[in-house]
Amino acid sequence: MKIILVGARGTIGRHVGEALAGHEIVPAGRAELDVADAKSVAAFYARVGGFDAVANASGSVAFAPFAQLSGEQWDASLRSKLLGQINLVREALPFIREGGSFTLVSGVLSNAFIAAGVAASTINRAVEGFAQSVAPELPRRLRINVVSPTLLEDSRAKYGAAFPGFEPVSGARVALAYVRSILGIETGRVYRVGE
Amino acid sequence: MKIILVGARGTIGRHVGEALAGHEIVPAGRAELDVADAKSVAAFYARVGGFDAVANASGSVAFAPFAQLSGEQWDASLRSKLLGQINLVREALPFIREGGSFTLVSGVLSNAFIAAGVAASTINRAVEGFAQSVAPELPRRLRINVVSPTLLEDSRAKYGAAFPGFEPVSGARVALAYVRSILGIETGRVYRVGE
Repeated sequence: MKIILVGARGTIGRHVGEALAGHEIVPAGRAELDVADAKSVAAFYARVGGFDAVANASGSVAFAPFAQLSGEQWDASLRSKLLGQINLVREALPFIREGGSFTLVSGVLSNAFIAAGVAASTINRAVEGFAQSVAPELPRRLRINVVSPTLLEDSRAKYGAAFPGFEPVSGARVALAYVRSILGIETGRVYRVGE
Repeated sequence: MKIILVGARGTIGRHVGEALAGHEIVPAGRAELDVADAKSVAAFYARVGGFDAVANASGSVAFAPFAQLSGEQWDASLRSKLLGQINLVREALPFIREGGSFTLVSGVLSNAFIAAGVAASTINRAVEGFAQSVAPELPRRLRINVVSPTLLEDSRAKYGAAFPGFEPVSGARVALAYVRSILGIETGRVYRVGE
């Protein structure tokens, strides 16, 4: 299977790439495309040609107390993690093969609330709503699911203090959810890993 | 209680105004403010002065099949129904009285999916995530809830065909959820009316 892996060099992406060994992985990151720019995404897909899956492990949101979050921070967060993932799906439609799949990423903050996490909670929830509502109207047996990981063990040193009492999960377990989405038959699912 | 009612002249707003008879209602609509423009919202609140509640019954999203929804339609929908409601909360913080409340609006499509409804489902879900995640960090005992109405009886003629098999709900029942949010003590709740 030919799988485009966006964010392939990130914390989650590296684990997903390992878990998919044996498949043809097309790694993508900031050097290859800007997910917030639909034209950049479309041009990337046109260069790749036909493929069977798009798996995304990229996207960032601003962390700040609500009263300090600016309109610019909301806009940038929406462009990166919501509209970027929507671009990855919409622009792939002319290229992805019948029965192909999309795997997006949200995160534990869609259902768990931490200080300074309001943009993450808002946008993760939107990503899940997008995938679940678009699933029934995708053509050609295309599928779409979301992986929602909690804090990763690899990120504990950097972000652990912001997630008090959260039990970190291994990157390998998160990668399993991607494998389940890409190689399985389910659609419109949110795989919550470590919640 | 002094209550700012945004969208006061709309289908839902009129019912909410009736249900809150006896309170001091400050009606607001497009003539008074542009919710997508934070400065317009702030200027409106400054003119009103102190108040006890903001209840919103405004916000619109684009309806179209996913493949036909443009980036501009996504942006306009986010500005109106998500960022607009975020502006209504953030810009009120300097003015709203201790113990005051915010009541936002999402809609049945956050949990029910219809043709051409992907933007509504995505954005309604985000509105609910925003309210639930910001609730624990609001200062001065401020509260925030969301009313999620299904198709209204008043809208059946206009929108009913897009909601096959949905049982419409009376505007009076939707208004009760606003009253419960404004006059009750709950916070971080989503009141689903008619689901």
